[in-house]
Amino acid sequence: MANLAWTRRHILSLSDFQPAEYDTVLQTAASFQEVLSRRTKKVPTLQGQVVANLFFEPSTRTRNSFELAAKRLSADTLNFAPGTSSLTKGETILDTAKTYLDMGTDIMVVRHREAGVPLAIANEMDRLQSRVGVFNAGDGQHEHPSQALLDLFTVCTLLNAEKPQLSLLEGKKIAIVGDILHSRVARSNIWSLTASGAEVHLAAPPTLLPKQFADFVKAEHQPDHQDMPLDRKLFLHWSLEPALEKADFVMTLRLQRERMTQHLLPSLREYHQRFGITHARLKHCQPDVKVLHPGPVNRGVEISSELMDDPQFSLISQQVTSGVAVRMALLYLMGSGKG
Amino acid sequence: MANLAWTRRHILSLSDFQPAEYDTVLQTAASFQEVLSRRTKKVPTLQGQVVANLFFEPSTRTRNSFELAAKRLSADTLNFAPGTSSLTKGETILDTAKTYLDMGTDIMVVRHREAGVPLAIANEMDRLQSRVGVFNAGDGQHEHPSQALLDLFTVCTLLNAEKPQLSLLEGKKIAIVGDILHSRVARSNIWSLTASGAEVHLAAPPTLLPKQFADFVKAEHQPDHQDMPLDRKLFLHWSLEPALEKADFVMTLRLQRERMTQHLLPSLREYHQRFGITHARLKHCQPDVKVLHPGPVNRGVEISSELMDDPQFSLISQQVTSGVAVRMALLYLMGSGKG
Amino acid sequence: MANLAWTRRHILSLSDFQPAEYDTVLQTAASFQEVLSRRTKKVPTLQGQVVANLFFEPSTRTRNSFELAAKRLSADTLNFAPGTSSLTKGETILDTAKTYLDMGTDIMVVRHREAGVPLAIANEMDRLQSRVGVFNAGDGQHEHPSQALLDLFTVCTLLNAEKPQLSLLEGKKIAIVGDILHSRVARSNIWSLTASGAEVHLAAPPTLLPKQFADFVKAEHQPDHQDMPLDRKLFLHWSLEPALEKADFVMTLRLQRERMTQHLLPSLREYHQRFGITHARLKHCQPDVKVLHPGPVNRGVEISSELMDDPQFSLISQQVTSGVAVRMALLYLMGSGKG
Repeated sequence: MANLAWTRRHILSLSDFQPAEYDTVLQTAASFQEVLSRRTKKVPTLQGQVVANLFFEPSTRTRNSFELAAKRLSADTLNFAPGTSSLTKGETILDTAKTYLDMGTDIMVVRHREAGVPLAIANEMDRLQSRVGVFNAGDGQHEHPSQALLDLFTVCTLLNAEKPQLSLLEGKKIAIVGDILHSRVARSNIWSLTASGAEVHLAAPPTLLPKQFADFVKAEHQPDHQDMPLDRKLFLHWSLEPALEKADFVMTLRLQRERMTQHLLPSLREYHQRFGITHARLKHCQPDVKVLHPGPVNRGVEISSELMDDPQFSLISQQVTSGVAVRMALLYLMGSGKG
Repeated sequence: MANLAWTRRHILSLSDFQPAEYDTVLQTAASFQEVLSRRTKKVPTLQGQVVANLFFEPSTRTRNSFELAAKRLSADTLNFAPGTSSLTKGETILDTAKTYLDMGTDIMVVRHREAGVPLAIANEMDRLQSRVGVFNAGDGQHEHPSQALLDLFTVCTLLNAEKPQLSLLEGKKIAIVGDILHSRVARSNIWSLTASGAEVHLAAPPTLLPKQFADFVKAEHQPDHQDMPLDRKLFLHWSLEPALEKADFVMTLRLQRERMTQHLLPSLREYHQRFGITHARLKHCQPDVKVLHPGPVNRGVEISSELMDDPQFSLISQQVTSGVAVRMALLYLMGSGKG
Repeated sequence: MANLAWTRRHILSLSDFQPAEYDTVLQTAASFQEVLSRRTKKVPTLQGQVVANLFFEPSTRTRNSFELAAKRLSADTLNFAPGTSSLTKGETILDTAKTYLDMGTDIMVVRHREAGVPLAIANEMDRLQSRVGVFNAGDGQHEHPSQALLDLFTVCTLLNAEKPQLSLLEGKKIAIVGDILHSRVARSNIWSLTASGAEVHLAAPPTLLPKQFADFVKAEHQPDHQDMPLDRKLFLHWSLEPALEKADFVMTLRLQRERMTQHLLPSLREYHQRFGITHARLKHCQPDVKVLHPGPVNRGVEISSELMDDPQFSLISQQVTSGVAVRMALLYLMGSGKG
């Protein structure tokens, strides 16, 4: 394992991640990817430590990925199930977190449908002068750092499996397609990908990528500019074609079915006709273009079923596999700073 | 551990199990039964491997038995909870399974209310050239191989604890009583018990053992014959007495209470009067007859409460204990073929 | 680990606990508290043993505390989830417990909304001549021994961290405030605290501490007396002030919100005005008074929010931490007696 500097106790947002930090994550994850190729895919790194999965918003898939990452580091895991918990008995979220602190938890992996909950818990842990690390596993429509980091690891290892690093993406064109407005995945990816020097092109119908969002992103990412492109790296489009033109990577986002009932979309079929990624549409991209999706996929909506199953183009399997290695790396780095 | 040949990657059905395979399972389970009698009931066999319990149809009892078997082999376990999962988000079952493959799962234990789901997942795993083994933990009304194998182990170890083997059942008479029509346990048991050379007698009311079922079973087991007995080994009865007459073992099946609302049965009381197993009814059997039930039991319905608690006749406790040893054996055998 | 005599197989109630047993628990827990201060907070004591959490009444917090205690002793754990279990299929509770026995469970941690269920399971385990230990993790309004023992450990280690023992509480005044009538925590605490020689003062509105309860407690604790104080150690009050007067410790109880709909209380606000613990009210106590609560807390109801967060007075964090050490001690002692 590379012995790299790491000073971050919590992983809450990628907005202030430095290039050296991205590279530390990528290289550490590459080491763990190697561990995962062995027959015995376990290391004793976090032996005796406790990782508590506080998934206030339920998710089996992401929780299992974190759980497996923790177990492969030999940590003990606790699963908090909100349905049967003290929350229904009137306890505050901070008091729940404090209980897990007092039980002896070392790392809390927090998912919540409200933005800012992991940060609030992290602030409380720091105020109490604990050494607990808080990991944002998705908070409302805010951020989902481990998803963006596993996406980054997936594309960087494709470009250089031995030495994945941020600078490999410099000058690449990356399209992010879909429900940008409601996507914590998109927000985290915008931070990491623009930091790499890639050109990031967002594409969605106006209802899912409103002008106000453009203003918001612009303000965050380049406060001085008034015109689009927001800066030389981030571009917004309300149709698919300019985003796909010569793209190296196409990141699709999950479409929540409830967007239909909210009248943000006429139908899944129309969405697929206008923004669904298919073999035909990839003709406008680079010949070796690759497609990503954070899962779970609505087949035939965000991506055609044929494309999803085509290993020449789809990186979806690699994303899931990368997820375990990247989460092992992040838990390891969070745990290592506490010696 | 006996170092026996085993070439089967998946355990989906007993329909094509060979006598040598039954004997391998029985002897391996006997070795693990011995491990379970030690103070430290654990072996490092599957250290670093991942067993994912994909119980699309919830079951605490069977899942805990598989989970314990996996933990005693030192595997890491993941539990998939359908209620809070991606399934409710529109993902297909095969995509869910593929996610667990990509996470690094080595063995998937699958239960589903539809027949054929474990087979479909196994086919997909093979198509993807993975080395994942799929274990059918009950699919609809189709099969439940581990239950039949633990039943087999339970009766064979009773006959020879040192060296349980299939041929011990040759010439024995075994009655299977109850809701044959809807029972995956019965279907799997019919395969294993007829393979042993035992006489298998099915007994149920006509609504739970229809003539069509007879035709179906007949076609599967002995396509040439037109008359009952279906062959020299499998007999059907619509009353209890001829099945119990001189029986060595009586296997009772669980009666789902919803059969009443489906008008397949007039009442639990009437069912018990006609097909419930009691001390009195066992008088027609061999003096050392034993009674089995896959659990959970409706006391006073399938079996009288007194009989269930009578260790002279009931093997129900031994079945549960055998379940862990047999599942350890099967997980071990599935894992061993992957060297 | 002190090698102390321990003969109790089950932990069901504190009503017959002897002073030497309390001291054994306290000293064993102190040893484990020391283990928990190490970087690797694990010992191999229960390696290969199985602790099954049978929480028929769901509780994430308490279950996680037991689960963590078991894991830190290197036991394997099974979690029983009543919602998806055989119970909904008509199985009796004793049959469910028997299934876990037959699977190879060594210790059953049982919570149930009916008083007496853990005892019934323990009796069944003994009748079957098993060596399984049953741990009452809360049964109806009856007892919650591990909560009372962790409360005892918390206050005794405050008085002497090196050598916590029961006699440290002799002559201390301890107030228990709140919903005494419905509280299994209060019942268990009354047993341990009166055994210590402390003066125990119960305070609650009459609806939550009825005269009949007084008679009941009186009969149990001192059958000869007819007048209050029940004996020199246990006093009942229907207002807060006499209980707090010169108190060394104030134990508050959780107020179930459903007490309001049952017309036992007019409002949470009025309850807080009359029985809520605040900084102001603590002026009547000893200057170094400490406040406890079993959690989860309704902030601003049983305790003011400011007081709850004031480490000068609140022992709530220490209680949660003690919980893991005390449960490790109890599981260890239960396991140790089995040779």
